[in-house]
Amino acid sequence: MTATPTPIDPKSMRLHNLALVLRTVADGDGVSRARIAAITGLNKTTVSSLVADLIDRGLVREAGITQRGGVGRPGVTVVLDGESFVALGLEINVDHMAFTAVDLLGRVRDEGFVRRDSRGRAAGDTLASLALLLRQALERLRNSGLRPVGAVLGLPGLVDPAQGLLLVAPNLGWHDVPVVAQLREALDEPDLDIRVENEANLGALAECWEGLGRSIDDFVYVSGYIGVGAGLIIGGKLHRGATGFGGEFGHMTLVADGPRCSCGSRGCVEALVGLEALLRRAGLEPDGPGRSTPTSATSPVTRLVEAAAAGEPRVVRALADVGAHLGAGFASAVNLVGCNAVVLGGYFASLHPWLREPIERELADRVLSSAWVPVEVGRSQLPGDAAVRGAALLSLRAMLDDPGRVTPVAPGARGDAG
Amino acid sequence: MTATPTPIDPKSMRLHNLALVLRTVADGDGVSRARIAAITGLNKTTVSSLVADLIDRGLVREAGITQRGGVGRPGVTVVLDGESFVALGLEINVDHMAFTAVDLLGRVRDEGFVRRDSRGRAAGDTLASLALLLRQALERLRNSGLRPVGAVLGLPGLVDPAQGLLLVAPNLGWHDVPVVAQLREALDEPDLDIRVENEANLGALAECWEGLGRSIDDFVYVSGYIGVGAGLIIGGKLHRGATGFGGEFGHMTLVADGPRCSCGSRGCVEALVGLEALLRRAGLEPDGPGRSTPTSATSPVTRLVEAAAAGEPRVVRALADVGAHLGAGFASAVNLVGCNAVVLGGYFASLHPWLREPIERELADRVLSSAWVPVEVGRSQLPGDAAVRGAALLSLRAMLDDPGRVTPVAPGARGDAG
Repeated sequence: MTATPTPIDPKSMRLHNLALVLRTVADGDGVSRARIAAITGLNKTTVSSLVADLIDRGLVREAGITQRGGVGRPGVTVVLDGESFVALGLEINVDHMAFTAVDLLGRVRDEGFVRRDSRGRAAGDTLASLALLLRQALERLRNSGLRPVGAVLGLPGLVDPAQGLLLVAPNLGWHDVPVVAQLREALDEPDLDIRVENEANLGALAECWEGLGRSIDDFVYVSGYIGVGAGLIIGGKLHRGATGFGGEFGHMTLVADGPRCSCGSRGCVEALVGLEALLRRAGLEPDGPGRSTPTSATSPVTRLVEAAAAGEPRVVRALADVGAHLGAGFASAVNLVGCNAVVLGGYFASLHPWLREPIERELADRVLSSAWVPVEVGRSQLPGDAAVRGAALLSLRAMLDDPGRVTPVAPGARGDAG
Repeated sequence: MTATPTPIDPKSMRLHNLALVLRTVADGDGVSRARIAAITGLNKTTVSSLVADLIDRGLVREAGITQRGGVGRPGVTVVLDGESFVALGLEINVDHMAFTAVDLLGRVRDEGFVRRDSRGRAAGDTLASLALLLRQALERLRNSGLRPVGAVLGLPGLVDPAQGLLLVAPNLGWHDVPVVAQLREALDEPDLDIRVENEANLGALAECWEGLGRSIDDFVYVSGYIGVGAGLIIGGKLHRGATGFGGEFGHMTLVADGPRCSCGSRGCVEALVGLEALLRRAGLEPDGPGRSTPTSATSPVTRLVEAAAAGEPRVVRALADVGAHLGAGFASAVNLVGCNAVVLGGYFASLHPWLREPIERELADRVLSSAWVPVEVGRSQLPGDAAVRGAALLSLRAMLDDPGRVTPVAPGARGDAG
C-alpha cells in the first residue's frame, strides 16, 4: 500500500467545490444557481457563496434572465467572464513563430504569425524575437482591459516542463536551453506564469478538448510536420508517464534494422512514415534538403494530395505503404495501451482518405481484441495550428482547474487600464 | 470539459476518511489513534469514531500497548484483524489449477494445487472440478471462524471482468465462457463476490504490491508461461485502457512479416520470444508438441538455465537474440508509455542474468529519452505462483479500498461456526 490519500478538510473541500462550480459554469451555456446546485449536488446556499467568490475573482459574471420552460421562478444565469483574463499560446517551430491569446470563453483576442527559419540559429535570438512580438501583444491586451495570466510555449522537441527546459530539438538544432528563464528575462514579465511543452502534446490536447476528444477519451494523436510528433491521451488527459517523455509514438520501432532515424535509432515510425520518406516512396522531390514547409500552398503535401486525388499509381502505392506502417505502429500502441482510437493530425490529416483503409486493415489483423472492440481511425477536426491553440488552452485550463490561485480583482480596477 | 467531478458531502467524506484510516492501519505495523491522527491530518475525535466503526465491521482490532519512546502517554495500538475475513485467489492454467486464501494481513490461511491438463476439455468440467476443491476449502475456513468475502479467478486469455466472461484463451482452447456465472452455480455461494481477471494482469498486480512495485510505480511486467502474458502498471495501478484489453505487450509487432503468432497475427513479441521460439533457437527439444510444463523440475526452462550457466554457445546466443527482441519491444513500450522500468516474470525471471544486458543495450539505443532517464530492467521478486497470489490480493484490496461495503459483525457471532 504505497500512496496514502490526503485527508479532506473544510478548506480543501471548499476549493474543490469552487473548481466544481467553475467547471459547471464552463460546461454550460449560461446556468442559474439553482441549475448548478442540481448538477453538482451541492446545496443552494453553498452554490450562492461559491458563485459570489468566483465573481470576486473575475472568473464568472451574471448574464441575462432565464425562464426555465415557463415553470418556476426565473433565475439569473451565470457565465464565464470573457472580459477578465486571457491566456497565451506560443509556438516556435522550424520555419515559423506564432502566438494566440484566448479569453475564458476560448475566443481568440489577439494572434500573430511570423515566418522565420530558426534552424541552426541561436535559441536566445529566436526567443528574443518572440518576446518582442509578445510585448506589443501584451500591451494591446491590457489596453483592452484584459489581464494576461499565463503562457505556454510549444517546441518541437523533448522538453522538461517542470524545469522549464528544452532538452533537445533535433530539427531546430537546439539542446539544453533554459527556455522559460530566457523567455521570462527577454519579456520582463515577472508575474506571468510561463510554461513549456512539446508541440505534439499540445496538438493532442487541443484535439482532446476541441476536436475528436469531445467524444473519445483515449487515443494516440499523431501529427506530421517536419518530424513525426505524437501525444497519448488516456482518460481525457495527456499521458506523460514516469519518465515525463511518454507519447513518443514516432520513435516506436517498426523495423529493427530499418532506415536510420533523426533520433539516432533505426526503423522508427518517423523514419518510415515521415514526410521525406513518404516523398521518396512517391517519387516526389522535397523542396530542398531539410527545407520543406508543409503548410505552404506549393508544399509537397499539397502536391501529394493532388497526385493521389488524380490516382497517380506511385503516389497511391506510397500512401498505402505508409498507411500499413502507421497501422502496424498503431496496432502495437493499441495492444499495449488499450486505447480505442487513433487520430491523424498535421499533414496526415490531409492524407486521411488514402491512409485510413490500410491502417484499419493492420489494426484488424494485429490487435488482439479487435474482434470485440473496434478501433476508430479519426481525422483531426482542428482547423489551423493545433499546437498554438493547445498551448493557449492548456494555460487557460490550469487557471480554471485551480481558481483558488486567482486573486480577487480590486473593485473598480477592471478596465481602468483602457 | 468532459468529466464533471462529483461533489463531496459529509457522508462520502466519512467513507473516504474511513478508507483512509483503514489504509493507514494497513500500512503501519501497529499504530495508535494519535499516530493515525498525525499521519492522516484528521482530528483525534474523528479518528476514534472511525476506528470504532472499523472494529464493528471486523476489519481492525486493538493490539498491545505502545510506549512512544518513553515520552507521552502510552497508547493502544490498532492493527488489521487477521481473524476476521479471508479473500480467495483462484487460477486455472493449461496444466494446473490452484487456489489460495489470504487474511487481511496477507497471510496464507489455506491453499491448494492440482496438476490437471485442461487443454481441449470443456470449460464447465474444469470449473466444476475447481468448485469441488473450493467447497472443501470454504468449509475449513469457516470452521476456523473466518468469513470468505470474495474470490478472483485468473485465466490465461482475454477476459471481460465487468461481464464475468472469458472471451478467448487460445492455449486452453476456450472461448466465450461465462466463467463467473458457471463457477458461482457450481459453488453454490450466492454471497461470495466472484470476479475474473487475466492471469498476467494478476501477476503484474502481485509484483506491484509485493515485489518491485514497492519501489517503482510504472512498469511493464512480462510473464512467460506457455504463452507470453503481460500487464502494464501505470501510477501504481493496473492499466486496462479504454478497450479493457490493454497491457498486451506480447502482441506488439516486432517484425511486420515475421513468424505466425498463436493470436493469428505475425511477428508479435510472443512469436519471437515465447518458450517454443526460444527452445528452437537454442537447439533444445520441447517436452512434446504443446505439452511443455515450465514449472516442473525437468522442464525445458531448467535445462536452458543449466546450459546457459555452463556457457553452451548456442543457448547463450539464443538468449542474447531473445533479449534483443524483448529489448526492442520494451523500447517501443517505454517510448510510448513513458514507464521507467520493465520487469521479467515467469520463466523470463530465471533467465534474467542472460537477458538483462541485451535488453539494456536496446533500451539505450532506441528510447528517445534514455540519455536523461535510465530504464531499469528488473527481475520479479515474487516466489511461487504470482498470478494466484495476485488474485487473492486483488480480492482483498477491493474490500480494504471500500470498507463501507463490509457490514458490521453481530456481537458474539464471530467464531461461532467453529
